Amino acid sequence: MTKILTREEILAVLPQVDAIGAVERGFAAYSAGKAIVPPVGELMFENPPGETHIKYGYIEGQPYYVIKVGCGFYENAKRGLSTRNGLMLVLRRDTGEIAFILQDQGLLTDVRTAAAGAVAAKYLAPKRVARIGIVGAGGQGRAQAQYLRGTVDCDDLIVWGVDQAELDRYRADVEAFGFRIATTRRIEEVMESCNLVVTATPSRRPLILPGMMRPGTHVSAFGSDTPEKIELDPLLFREADLICVDSREQSKSRGEIHHARAAGVLEGRTVHELGEVINGVAPTRADDRQTTIIDLTGVAVQDIEICRVVCERFE
Amino acid sequence: MTKILTREEILAVLPQVDAIGAVERGFAAYSAGKAIVPPVGELMFENPPGETHIKYGYIEGQPYYVIKVGCGFYENAKRGLSTRNGLMLVLRRDTGEIAFILQDQGLLTDVRTAAAGAVAAKYLAPKRVARIGIVGAGGQGRAQAQYLRGTVDCDDLIVWGVDQAELDRYRADVEAFGFRIATTRRIEEVMESCNLVVTATPSRRPLILPGMMRPGTHVSAFGSDTPEKIELDPLLFREADLICVDSREQSKSRGEIHHARAAGVLEGRTVHELGEVINGVAPTRADDRQTTIIDLTGVAVQDIEICRVVCERFE
Repeated sequence: MTKILTREEILAVLPQVDAIGAVERGFAAYSAGKAIVPPVGELMFENPPGETHIKYGYIEGQPYYVIKVGCGFYENAKRGLSTRNGLMLVLRRDTGEIAFILQDQGLLTDVRTAAAGAVAAKYLAPKRVARIGIVGAGGQGRAQAQYLRGTVDCDDLIVWGVDQAELDRYRADVEAFGFRIATTRRIEEVMESCNLVVTATPSRRPLILPGMMRPGTHVSAFGSDTPEKIELDPLLFREADLICVDSREQSKSRGEIHHARAAGVLEGRTVHELGEVINGVAPTRADDRQTTIIDLTGVAVQDIEICRVVCERFE
Repeated sequence: MTKILTREEILAVLPQVDAIGAVERGFAAYSAGKAIVPPVGELMFENPPGETHIKYGYIEGQPYYVIKVGCGFYENAKRGLSTRNGLMLVLRRDTGEIAFILQDQGLLTDVRTAAAGAVAAKYLAPKRVARIGIVGAGGQGRAQAQYLRGTVDCDDLIVWGVDQAELDRYRADVEAFGFRIATTRRIEEVMESCNLVVTATPSRRPLILPGMMRPGTHVSAFGSDTPEKIELDPLLFREADLICVDSREQSKSRGEIHHARAAGVLEGRTVHELGEVINGVAPTRADDRQTTIIDLTGVAVQDIEICRVVCERFE
């Protein structure tokens, strides 16, 4: 009864699913109060460091609910192993039976996260994107570029990373999506030429500092999904005309907004949810001169929706 | 790399594993502060009613950590489906890789819960057990009897249930473990003749009422694992010389102790953990005249330990 899908089987159907549309619907349902999303479960290890997150929830009216286990063990790279592992469980709402086990090893998290980048860009990026800046040359940096390709009318991309060999591999891989790609190890170079910037690193110190962000820039921050990680200096939020998150609830305890709130820079500011922007109940960018930031920590509704469109292919 | 084990494969190795010893070690580690056990994750549904619990954690020094998903959908019975579903994920502590997926559909939860009944009886039951009383003629009522068989020197058992046909099936099944079995639909009959009583029902109203429990009785309460469920009238705790739980932390928000605390009957009382009793840092039963109650809501250390001894057979 339970169907087990491998990473390869899931990869094969991805070109047939509308991941961006699915994730957009997920955010809309979430901010409309139509989703049950309990707090993220978490298990943190030291020596060797590792983290496991459990995200789970249900969207009203859907036939399935979803439990996702995501594991990040960064020292695996030294041993030639994937730093990311995990799976998705898709359970029948009416019986609690496990309909699907998606042994995706983090693939669908990459996809739904990158799809969120496309949704954020659709609603918040300037109309004319001069150049796309990707901060972080890892797997998510690649996926963000891939999913922005069909959403944003810009084929000029610069990627920031700390290691030139890694940057060269990124360029080789991501050129295949139809981008002209520059690489840099100076983050200022990204911020000087780009008005759509996506951050996707596991950094624990701010990478984008006050004054680096030009007016008219949109920044989507994806890297920080725990209380510790941070990519944006909290003072950057003072320079933003519009501040968004995927989940206000989750941003209380994790992500950039959590640091900004602790730093006191959000006093008197409204933090909108992407789903509210999608639903038309929060403002979107007014013009190409506004500066906008969205902080995304990843919400179970994205997992639910991506699972739904993938599993439909195997029903 | 991930090994997937079916319910049948797990069932086949159960006679080769020391479930009771494993669970005893789990409780000992838990109460010694050697386990990470985050709060239970929970997803509750109405129409049709269903509950999903996520229990997960890690015991210091072990090669694996465990995430368990347990689903109870009681109306499944009407459709001829199992009311219980779920699985266990066994992950490598050093890499976060999923080593095993145990598609046990609740089997190992039944086993580790029944094994906890044996551990509780080992430490808390009177030396001379006159008769074993099982309250609840379902799967867990069967498993409790099975695991008590080798632990307690008593082959006389009475089972309480609401439906005579169900009681007759119970008798037929459980006689196979070597018990002489009486059945009853009057709970008083259990309490009048038994000095070791195990409750294992999904009741939402107290079944054992003040005055029913004779001095010298030990009661292990397993049925209530949520904030709503209850099997023991809170006033029973006033009649107990020794009060134990599997987890003080979990008993703050679920199980019998949670109701008793709300009713104010625990003021000035010490609630010991079973692991503390095992570790010799809490008192155990002094003599056969004492009355003892233990409330168990099920702790992830039990899942971790039962998975460990099962998975060792498949390494």
